[in-house]
Amino acid sequence: MLNADLLLINATVVTMNAQYDIFSPGAVAVQDGQIVWVGTMNDLRLMTEDSDGQNGSHPQSSVLRPPSSVIDCAGHAIIPGLVNAHTHVPMSLLRGLADDLRLDVWLMGYMMPVEREFVSPDFCRLGTGLSCAEMIRSGVTTFADMYYFEDSVARATAEAGMRALCAQSVLKFPTPDAQSYEDSLAMARDFIQRWQGHPLIVPSVAPHAPYTCTHEILRACAQLAAEFDVPLHTHLAETAQEVEDSRKLHDLPVIPYVEKTGLFEAKVLAAHCVHVDQAEIRTLRKYNAGVAHNPTSNLKLSSGVAPITRMLQLGLNVGIGTDGPASNNDLDMFEETRLAAILAKGITGDPTVVPARQALAMATTLGAHALHMGHLTGSLEVGKRADLAVVNLQPLHNSPRFERDAQAIYSQLVYAGKSTDVRDVMVEGRWLMRDRQLMTLNEDNLRLAAQDYARRIDYFLIQREKSVLSKLAAIGGLEQEESFEVQVKARVDDPDRIVALIEGRDPQTRIPTLTVLRHVHYRQFDTYFTFDDPSQGRLRYREDEFINDKGESYNLRYRLTLTLPAKEREFDHSILLSRSRFIAPARHSRRFYREYFRPTAEVEIEKDRRRWQVLYKDIGFYINLDTLARPAQPGTFLELKSRTWSKRDAELKAEMVGELLARLGITSEATLQEEYVDFVTTQPS
Amino acid sequence: MLNADLLLINATVVTMNAQYDIFSPGAVAVQDGQIVWVGTMNDLRLMTEDSDGQNGSHPQSSVLRPPSSVIDCAGHAIIPGLVNAHTHVPMSLLRGLADDLRLDVWLMGYMMPVEREFVSPDFCRLGTGLSCAEMIRSGVTTFADMYYFEDSVARATAEAGMRALCAQSVLKFPTPDAQSYEDSLAMARDFIQRWQGHPLIVPSVAPHAPYTCTHEILRACAQLAAEFDVPLHTHLAETAQEVEDSRKLHDLPVIPYVEKTGLFEAKVLAAHCVHVDQAEIRTLRKYNAGVAHNPTSNLKLSSGVAPITRMLQLGLNVGIGTDGPASNNDLDMFEETRLAAILAKGITGDPTVVPARQALAMATTLGAHALHMGHLTGSLEVGKRADLAVVNLQPLHNSPRFERDAQAIYSQLVYAGKSTDVRDVMVEGRWLMRDRQLMTLNEDNLRLAAQDYARRIDYFLIQREKSVLSKLAAIGGLEQEESFEVQVKARVDDPDRIVALIEGRDPQTRIPTLTVLRHVHYRQFDTYFTFDDPSQGRLRYREDEFINDKGESYNLRYRLTLTLPAKEREFDHSILLSRSRFIAPARHSRRFYREYFRPTAEVEIEKDRRRWQVLYKDIGFYINLDTLARPAQPGTFLELKSRTWSKRDAELKAEMVGELLARLGITSEATLQEEYVDFVTTQPS
Repeated sequence: MLNADLLLINATVVTMNAQYDIFSPGAVAVQDGQIVWVGTMNDLRLMTEDSDGQNGSHPQSSVLRPPSSVIDCAGHAIIPGLVNAHTHVPMSLLRGLADDLRLDVWLMGYMMPVEREFVSPDFCRLGTGLSCAEMIRSGVTTFADMYYFEDSVARATAEAGMRALCAQSVLKFPTPDAQSYEDSLAMARDFIQRWQGHPLIVPSVAPHAPYTCTHEILRACAQLAAEFDVPLHTHLAETAQEVEDSRKLHDLPVIPYVEKTGLFEAKVLAAHCVHVDQAEIRTLRKYNAGVAHNPTSNLKLSSGVAPITRMLQLGLNVGIGTDGPASNNDLDMFEETRLAAILAKGITGDPTVVPARQALAMATTLGAHALHMGHLTGSLEVGKRADLAVVNLQPLHNSPRFERDAQAIYSQLVYAGKSTDVRDVMVEGRWLMRDRQLMTLNEDNLRLAAQDYARRIDYFLIQREKSVLSKLAAIGGLEQEESFEVQVKARVDDPDRIVALIEGRDPQTRIPTLTVLRHVHYRQFDTYFTFDDPSQGRLRYREDEFINDKGESYNLRYRLTLTLPAKEREFDHSILLSRSRFIAPARHSRRFYREYFRPTAEVEIEKDRRRWQVLYKDIGFYINLDTLARPAQPGTFLELKSRTWSKRDAELKAEMVGELLARLGITSEATLQEEYVDFVTTQPS
Repeated sequence: MLNADLLLINATVVTMNAQYDIFSPGAVAVQDGQIVWVGTMNDLRLMTEDSDGQNGSHPQSSVLRPPSSVIDCAGHAIIPGLVNAHTHVPMSLLRGLADDLRLDVWLMGYMMPVEREFVSPDFCRLGTGLSCAEMIRSGVTTFADMYYFEDSVARATAEAGMRALCAQSVLKFPTPDAQSYEDSLAMARDFIQRWQGHPLIVPSVAPHAPYTCTHEILRACAQLAAEFDVPLHTHLAETAQEVEDSRKLHDLPVIPYVEKTGLFEAKVLAAHCVHVDQAEIRTLRKYNAGVAHNPTSNLKLSSGVAPITRMLQLGLNVGIGTDGPASNNDLDMFEETRLAAILAKGITGDPTVVPARQALAMATTLGAHALHMGHLTGSLEVGKRADLAVVNLQPLHNSPRFERDAQAIYSQLVYAGKSTDVRDVMVEGRWLMRDRQLMTLNEDNLRLAAQDYARRIDYFLIQREKSVLSKLAAIGGLEQEESFEVQVKARVDDPDRIVALIEGRDPQTRIPTLTVLRHVHYRQFDTYFTFDDPSQGRLRYREDEFINDKGESYNLRYRLTLTLPAKEREFDHSILLSRSRFIAPARHSRRFYREYFRPTAEVEIEKDRRRWQVLYKDIGFYINLDTLARPAQPGTFLELKSRTWSKRDAELKAEMVGELLARLGITSEATLQEEYVDFVTTQPS
């Protein structure tokens, strides 16, 4: 005797089992969160007739006791709930915050500063709720997440009633939820222990990526996952740059490198795998690693297109993921599945690859296997958990319907179906949506609370973007420097004579009160970014190329200096400049800063600088001898500079600058007021 | 005094005008089908206050008389109605009929046979209605069509209330609506004359593509379009094959070739342009040709990705099209616009190209200009026709909303918006959808009528696909041949001796009653397709490579022969075979036939055949001397064959075959029953 709480009847049942059985019209029976029967309406009728007739000749197992609830699904397909194989659910709260930017500007300039400021357990709980609501509405029942405060993500997911692989992130940097990777690892261990055995949540650890982790972190995460026999979720080979860097640093492409760290001792779910070759695909296959293909994110961020046709041919479990909603910008698995199918055809030049049925398999059963959760979900089969979606086949955009070819239902779902065609969604036998009404989440509350976060984030960014200084501060590593300088600049025709004087080579002309403390020679490549509002100051990106005695470059230094407008006071020969400067090591490229700061104009200055740090009458000065290559300027420029701390001190030093100038044989007619950057007509950026 | 029938208020008005003005909160006023005012709510308030106060100090034109209808659009965006820049609307009736096939199999094997059978004015009317309903639901107000019976398309479009460029197709082949291209051209002229000046329909002519038209057709169509100053709609450079063929045939790539025909004397809308180089883009620009980019279709059919980033940089009007719903499989411009934006980034490797605003421009104002209808529609500006869509910005998949950056609205619409977010749609000031209810079309009727067509098409294809013969007939060019043959086959060790005998080189052994009429030598490459059901017969794809005296190949012939199972009757040495054969020239590749007929197994035979057509005692025979290269077989095979027409004749010829066999020195022990194809164990296809 078969018991069922619930019977879904008259549907086109698309099982996605190994034989790709389709029962049309067919039915699905559910009991205690599990699928207990799947088949045709004809077979169902036989079973219920037996049930009516009692004690028939059929075996007990083929008799169905009348279920407590029967739902008519005529005109609808029942499909396994979709599996979103890679995402970062709390990031729905950052959806549309910044788009059409290069990956580094997007990540370092926007995502990470905002995450540092806002990501908290509350943020993660709310973002997860919002994402769960969106995913349930689009037929997703299971997803693989990777974020911070994963305990909050898991709790919100369980409350929403969805199934998920939840992975606590570990990075070598401080994160919103941990000061060090040891802390993250400890959190991950706690998290796994707390959630192991939960009916909906599979806990997991996520070493973020090879380039954000060390060899030791990768190994430690793999051991942790292996110890608890839980999956490990990570990003692998997302960009060509990552592969290039891996070759430089480790002499190996990404997959062989992580293989060496022992990563594959765990059950791995690897997101992206855009830049992997055939040997690497075989390695992934050998270790039964799952792959999450994220076509929208990979296109939108220009990462490339993963070779999924080859992966599928070689038997890899390739699922489909939306990636985080901040880089997609939604969580629509219908869109993603359709894109996976058509993109593979466009890229391989073969329109027969990744046919609709295979694409739907990626979004269901292959995805579940990629998450190492294929025993629980991904197909409509007796014994699996009751995770399913009821999809309307009647809307205009999906009319008419051809039935000649059994494959047509896959084509209909993948090529013309929309997430909004999903009528009902069930996970673990529990309805999460009925007739497009969410059962476990309150949409209005979620929307309002999300909008409140958006308002706060908008305010934070508006404040930040009010000034170049605060934008600079947002990307970190800033040192402030309040500077008062006495400065004089002059054009000189005989630099050799001046060098000889400074260095005191000729006892006859030697300046006895002048002592050289240090001499440096470099080529300086400066880019000045300027802005509409001059009060924003001028941002200089400087590359110092240090030159040794043989004229060879022996060191490079990149610095970013924001100089706010100087207050000037003129003396006889020199100027007192008082200005605030903010200095930061320039970790990113000039291109990054251009796209991040969006200057209205920029100026390039290239010069050869010989600099002497000297004492003149026991007071410190800098003497620079500069020749300008860009903008090309004849002759050499002499600069005398000294730091100063008070008006009195400034007056004294201004006098001494005049004196030293005279000792170097420069007349005051030769002095200049302009800075080098003023020699150039600025170009719009 | 400004009069307005209708005022839409409190919206985020995304104008897509040249300055990309956004009014938020803003309003749009409509009068007599035209946009009469667009601006901020603040400005609107000032105007209505003036109106209340009467005789204010403001000029009359800035005073708004209270409109008859005011609609609140809070939480919504008002955008210009979307422009679907290339489609074949009646083909919604063929949606999902056949997918995941190569272009030729899809087109020649399915679309064209079904079109030949079903396309009629009624089909076009219904398919247009179905497509209009779907497009209105997704915010499209204008589309560019190309199909047959375009008069029916135009009528159904006008009834639905949509705006369209409707182009009557012209091809060099017979089409569902014309026996010859002269007929098509005459229809096109009639059609243009009838519809010119219509408020919604812009009539147009569509020479289908350079490869389906002649030089003369292209020229004649251009002249017709120029004569009436209407646009010309065509497909250009869709596939790499097309370009290769154009180079072979015309010594020019596609764009220079059509330029030479004078095509650009008309206002051209060119669909696809996937395979065009920079010079060709400049040519298109020079003639102000519009381009319709169809990313889904180009990926799904593996045509490639059009270089739109470059086209846009060079100032081309590039619109976005869904292509026909049989190759997409829907008409969703939200999906298409999003794909255009992300695909450009993925293909160029630059995530900053085709930002959301530019993508939306392609879907609206650039698209309208590509259709040469930019003066009518595509932006929300005073003087343009009132074509607009009201889009809900509140759904969960589009929450939260960031307002810091004015660009964010584009990002929201393009990257996270869905066609189902469209609430209201207006064309020419008339509501076509209000609160997601269609105002001009009955969805249920359309769905039912479409399903009826699907049933009939399913039946037609099921009948056709019941037999290999009917599938062969469906792709045309078939000749039937009822054949009765007397045949004997034998293995021979001394072919030279037999050749000498046949050719009578040695007067001693010469067979005086044998005369050679003709001698041919070829290599034959045969592929036999076989099917589960042997009554289907065996389909042979044969390539004959004709060999001259020097052993060089001088001609090639491709033939397809379907042989139904033979009835056999054995004589002493030979067999009487009676069988039906159907022969067709093989215009497509072996790959085409494999994918079209889907055989269960196939066998390849490769042989060298010397064939003599002879008279023996004044009766015609064929003598073949074959050596098999594949499957490799030792020795040479002799075949003697004669056509026969009656049982009596067969008996006579069987006797003569035995006699001739003896004259050639072959014993009956050497004769064989098998055909060559029986030498091979069949391989699954």
